[in-house]
Amino acid sequence: MAENQQVTVALDAYGGDYAPEEIVKGAVEAVNESKDIKVILVGKEEGIAKVLQGLSYPKDQIEIQNATEVIDMNDVPTAAIKGKKDSSLVVAMKMVKDQRADAVVSAGSTGAVLVGGQVLVGRLKGIKRPPLAPFIPTKKGFSLLIDCGANVDAKPENLKQFAQIGSIYYENMMGKKNPTVALLNIGTEEEKGNQLVKDTKPLLKDCEGIHYIGSVEARELVEGACDVIVCDAFVGNVVLKFFEGVAKTLFGLLKEELMSTTRTKVGAALAKPAFKNLLKQFDTESQGGAPLLGLNGLVVKAHGNSNAKAIKTALFQCVTFKQKQINEKISERI
Amino acid sequence: MAENQQVTVALDAYGGDYAPEEIVKGAVEAVNESKDIKVILVGKEEGIAKVLQGLSYPKDQIEIQNATEVIDMNDVPTAAIKGKKDSSLVVAMKMVKDQRADAVVSAGSTGAVLVGGQVLVGRLKGIKRPPLAPFIPTKKGFSLLIDCGANVDAKPENLKQFAQIGSIYYENMMGKKNPTVALLNIGTEEEKGNQLVKDTKPLLKDCEGIHYIGSVEARELVEGACDVIVCDAFVGNVVLKFFEGVAKTLFGLLKEELMSTTRTKVGAALAKPAFKNLLKQFDTESQGGAPLLGLNGLVVKAHGNSNAKAIKTALFQCVTFKQKQINEKISERI
Repeated sequence: MAENQQVTVALDAYGGDYAPEEIVKGAVEAVNESKDIKVILVGKEEGIAKVLQGLSYPKDQIEIQNATEVIDMNDVPTAAIKGKKDSSLVVAMKMVKDQRADAVVSAGSTGAVLVGGQVLVGRLKGIKRPPLAPFIPTKKGFSLLIDCGANVDAKPENLKQFAQIGSIYYENMMGKKNPTVALLNIGTEEEKGNQLVKDTKPLLKDCEGIHYIGSVEARELVEGACDVIVCDAFVGNVVLKFFEGVAKTLFGLLKEELMSTTRTKVGAALAKPAFKNLLKQFDTESQGGAPLLGLNGLVVKAHGNSNAKAIKTALFQCVTFKQKQINEKISERI
Repeated sequence: MAENQQVTVALDAYGGDYAPEEIVKGAVEAVNESKDIKVILVGKEEGIAKVLQGLSYPKDQIEIQNATEVIDMNDVPTAAIKGKKDSSLVVAMKMVKDQRADAVVSAGSTGAVLVGGQVLVGRLKGIKRPPLAPFIPTKKGFSLLIDCGANVDAKPENLKQFAQIGSIYYENMMGKKNPTVALLNIGTEEEKGNQLVKDTKPLLKDCEGIHYIGSVEARELVEGACDVIVCDAFVGNVVLKFFEGVAKTLFGLLKEELMSTTRTKVGAALAKPAFKNLLKQFDTESQGGAPLLGLNGLVVKAHGNSNAKAIKTALFQCVTFKQKQINEKISERI
């Protein structure tokens, strides 16, 4: 697909804490900003139409696809994907499978998105495990943490594919040629690592087409030690969630401390621009949602608390992904 | 050993960034504060004597044990422990083995401390893998992260022992009866986890004498979701180092931002007490060093950048450990 051609995204209008309002508004903001995108809003027709009412947007860029059910946070993912056939998520994913859409965006249940991506959208030929690969903010910009998904107990060959896929994704999304790739490890010396990491090292060393720089310690991640961080999903998931937890707790406690006396309150008011800049730099959603890669299409998991802006960013992430022909490049490489 | 009886600690005077000055001063501060401790300063006699000169302290509570070699950060741990037989660390550890000391404290190479602890000090009967178990600061206080050591690829039975050992250590060091124990996992649902975690769950459920509360997600760790966090050493090491990295980078960037304009500089000056309180709460060294548990004695790894105060805290950690008869309690349980 040439650049500037239109990309169609099936958007799960009933997934996320602020669905359907913020989700629908995000779609409207996106189509108002660019001709490159068409959004199919999937979910309860009436509810979606109600939010759209009164908003102005190019009518040919938004479509509604009715879906009467909703997968919620209490649903068991596998059961929900199998059982709720008319849910907004399942219907949206099937549109990608049927090639009526190029990508899916959902702010709903992570588990259901991961299961649905594999079961309903399907894997690209040669891909053994589709990895979930969010960007995490660093001092220097962003690093791709691949894999944070649901497939634990990975094999060395899986990690090799993550390195290849992650490298292509990073290069195209961030516009940086030959991004650095490192294995997340507990030391940089040759003998360090668990069995999985030790067995993966030679595969990455011999892997053509990636810029492998060896092991990286968790301590250096937020400094921006490498562009693509390769790890198994258990470790990636722990790192990602721990990051969210630490940042949230530290900022929360700092706020409490700052509000505790008049003096520090005044100080906080004056220092506000500094806090704002820092929070902006560490905005995990500025790069869109977490993509599930290696599928026949693209599945983007947006954060559960996504507002309209976050949804818009995730939608444009799908446009770039398609226009840069990332899947074609992954298929060529694997 | 009854409370208030004297505990002898062999202190590696030549390990750490600020050795021997800060290490020796830490010993002097400790003996000046309490009659319960005797410190054997191990390392180059002349260097130690030079620092001691002019300092006043009860002479019967400090002894020097000459050791002519030093293990540095470039040494390969196993080779150093085998080859540098007259190094301060090896000599100090042998004193514990020979029961001339109750514990060792070192701020030197983590790898060498871990290897030396196992090889030279030796394991308690029944202990398969001595875990390294630092406290990490949380919103509520401290949680014990067990294991962060060098033994990766753990087995379910190892994790069960970590839960038992960690529980005893936490209860006695923090003075909290029946501390909560949780498995670090990527979700709290029953089916979540990698194979190791799944196989460990039934063992912890059936384990008597611990207060097992199920799985805990990394997101909740800093909130203080449980007292004892059980995980394999690879994951624990990643969490520990990532925590250090994130905290350091966030505080560093905040400082940069605060110093960037006159307005924010003034704000920062006023808000200083708030920052100080927060840093105090998140002082990783306020609870001493990371203990290597399950040994015939105690090995404490103090942080490489330990100053006199951190060393003093680590020394008193050994006193509490011995006086509370933690090893006896571990032996009874295992």
